[in-house]
Amino acid sequence: MDYEGFFRDRIAKLHEEGRYRVFCDLERHRGAFPRATRRSGKAEGEVTVWCSNDYLGMGQHPKVLAAMHDALDRCGAGAGGTRNISGTTHDHVLLEHELADLHGKESALLFTSGYVSNWAALGTLGAMLPNAVILSDALNHASMIEGIRHSRTEKVIWKHNDVMDLEQKLAAIDPDRPKIVAFESVYSMDGDIAPIAEILDVCEEYGALSYIDEVHAVGMYGPRGGGVAEREGLMHRIDVIEGTLGKAFGVMGGYIAASSALCDFVRSYASGFIFSTALPPAVAAGARAAIRHLKESSAERDLQKRRVAELRARLDAIGIPHLPNPSHIVPVMVKDPVKCKYISDLLLDQWGIYVQPINYPTVPRGTERLRFTPGPLHTDADLDHLAKALESLWAQCQLARLPRAAE
Amino acid sequence: MDYEGFFRDRIAKLHEEGRYRVFCDLERHRGAFPRATRRSGKAEGEVTVWCSNDYLGMGQHPKVLAAMHDALDRCGAGAGGTRNISGTTHDHVLLEHELADLHGKESALLFTSGYVSNWAALGTLGAMLPNAVILSDALNHASMIEGIRHSRTEKVIWKHNDVMDLEQKLAAIDPDRPKIVAFESVYSMDGDIAPIAEILDVCEEYGALSYIDEVHAVGMYGPRGGGVAEREGLMHRIDVIEGTLGKAFGVMGGYIAASSALCDFVRSYASGFIFSTALPPAVAAGARAAIRHLKESSAERDLQKRRVAELRARLDAIGIPHLPNPSHIVPVMVKDPVKCKYISDLLLDQWGIYVQPINYPTVPRGTERLRFTPGPLHTDADLDHLAKALESLWAQCQLARLPRAAE
Ligand SMILES: Cc1ncc(COP(=O)(O)O)c(C=O)c1O
Ligand SMILES: Cc1ncc(COP(=O)(O)O)c(C=O)c1O
Repeated sequence: MDYEGFFRDRIAKLHEEGRYRVFCDLERHRGAFPRATRRSGKAEGEVTVWCSNDYLGMGQHPKVLAAMHDALDRCGAGAGGTRNISGTTHDHVLLEHELADLHGKESALLFTSGYVSNWAALGTLGAMLPNAVILSDALNHASMIEGIRHSRTEKVIWKHNDVMDLEQKLAAIDPDRPKIVAFESVYSMDGDIAPIAEILDVCEEYGALSYIDEVHAVGMYGPRGGGVAEREGLMHRIDVIEGTLGKAFGVMGGYIAASSALCDFVRSYASGFIFSTALPPAVAAGARAAIRHLKESSAERDLQKRRVAELRARLDAIGIPHLPNPSHIVPVMVKDPVKCKYISDLLLDQWGIYVQPINYPTVPRGTERLRFTPGPLHTDADLDHLAKALESLWAQCQLARLPRAAE
Repeated sequence: MDYEGFFRDRIAKLHEEGRYRVFCDLERHRGAFPRATRRSGKAEGEVTVWCSNDYLGMGQHPKVLAAMHDALDRCGAGAGGTRNISGTTHDHVLLEHELADLHGKESALLFTSGYVSNWAALGTLGAMLPNAVILSDALNHASMIEGIRHSRTEKVIWKHNDVMDLEQKLAAIDPDRPKIVAFESVYSMDGDIAPIAEILDVCEEYGALSYIDEVHAVGMYGPRGGGVAEREGLMHRIDVIEGTLGKAFGVMGGYIAASSALCDFVRSYASGFIFSTALPPAVAAGARAAIRHLKESSAERDLQKRRVAELRARLDAIGIPHLPNPSHIVPVMVKDPVKCKYISDLLLDQWGIYVQPINYPTVPRGTERLRFTPGPLHTDADLDHLAKALESLWAQCQLARLPRAAE
């Protein structure tokens, strides 16, 4: 077996398909977000980041940074162990309380990432609930898919956001079997939002455990940033709310919030929780500061909503088609991996605009896109510049355009 | 299905078996490690941590903390995205170069944890190398076991550290099939070390890819902290070296170091790498500072070795049996989960000594133990106090004792 040849061959295939990924090497500038210095590629230079998942700029917030500096000074860098073996610090405990409170649950459990929280929680629930079935939305995130795969329990895929289909599938399963319905609130690539209340109705009717991924919604929706389920007054009806500390909360880590028994069960049995070093106390402290701030302040959410509406209005004005949706995500569809990368490269090299091309496996082939995430720290000038750049490139690349609003 | 009842029942079982885990809520004190304040339990108070995997105290090292403070000030808290979508910062790139250099490899690839690095790398290699077989040491860590399980490829378990058995198993496999031999250098619970050279001999003879987990050895062994393989001059013969940034390097994160093609392959295909927010730049910067320091300084390693020898000598002097091994881990076997927890509770409550009882599933049932990890920051007085406490408790609990050296 020629291992090296095999790896090189598989990499060559990615190049052929135009979906080989080149990471953009950035230096973010504290206090100047979304500005960054680009360190790789032809030109070093200043860029404006338009695709960050630090949606509200909390990764730059003085309270978050102060909490992290303080925790470093109080207790050092890492946790020094798994949660069980010397790695639980008071910062972890406080953060778990904060998260339980955020979602109105008895308890919360931290993981090293949102990916691990989905993978470990669904993997453990699916494997250990006797003869369980997991009903998974067709567009669920990779971390849920892998968790379900890992559980080796039966999996039933229901049509994306289709409650009728979910209901039919639930009705076909033996009422006595444990059932888990797993779905997201905001789907991150199309920006559509699940019909949560209707999904919960059928979960309750068929006695299924409800499991929602609010990774792209926590901090962003609801009066205290509890997510779409908070906004819609539904948190108390959901069994497991999963979230990340790495997007709107600006740091890193993942969690579930649920009943004490469920959290304690996952804590006690999930390999991905048990056998891994805990988050650094400073990371926990920073995330907690972000959560606390966003529980009380809606200014960042309000300003972000305005920026999102403004970007959409500008795209409409110049006739650049974007996927309409009720969330904060603005996908501009290019539908070709090579063109998508080409435009993104030109934006970066000629205009200092950084928006990563999104390709397979993150989105289905043929739905390649530029995914814009306007935030409270983007300025009017940033919006002007972006609109000008896109208008010019769309002309240059002869991409489909809608009739202009003005025409 | 009564979900809550099921979870409570499973928790009750853990209580019955005496292996329900109570996390010790600590506040580590920067500059005073291994001292910490215990926040939970009957008594709040000062304790000395004897079971940390921050083996060399690097989580408290001024250079590490300075690098983290600086990175926070330079670029903020989180990375703000997956590595592909705006989450690659210059700190990640520099750290990957540092790790490649540490292990003398072309390339290195960062993950959010050592757990994820094993799970994602073995999962991806096993699933994608056509018709692969993974030969796994019987005592491999959970993260490797789950990665192999996830790959759904054929798995063959060889007897722990038994090269003859490995060779027989390799010889029985079709020579044309891709084969991965996965093992650790230092096994963290018994502290024994794999016969790496002999394992590599048979890997080379049978054309197997060699994969070593040096999680408990990086930073600790070898003149530059490259691990046991560095100490034995074997790094260039190993295909994949996996490590963590969360133990001797004192922060958090995981990695593989290997050929450029292999790293690029895993980077491009591993779900657990692709679909997860990158490490915070400050975490990357802190880990890099620790690695750079330990490449040049052996003072921490030397002092740690002395402390380990001293603890062993004291245990011998008072006749407390510990598992002999060639590493830095000092396991004192209790062989009963209830007794083990009892002693650990007494040490904590009466003596201010924190050593977590290690029970199933971390070690096999019936091999419950106290696992001591003496470090360069433990003092003579700490050792005296620990020896006195153990001597008194061993008398009190009527545990087996060896004849004293002096008797
Ligand atoms: C829907 C969804 N769930 C989970 C995750 C994983 O969260 P994390 O980045 O914290 O690992 C992501 C993205 O990264 C996501 O988009
Ligand atoms: C042998 C081994 N490999 C991997 C890991 C996981 O590394 P991390 O703690 O960085 O997730 C651990 C322990 O945590 C381990 O003991």
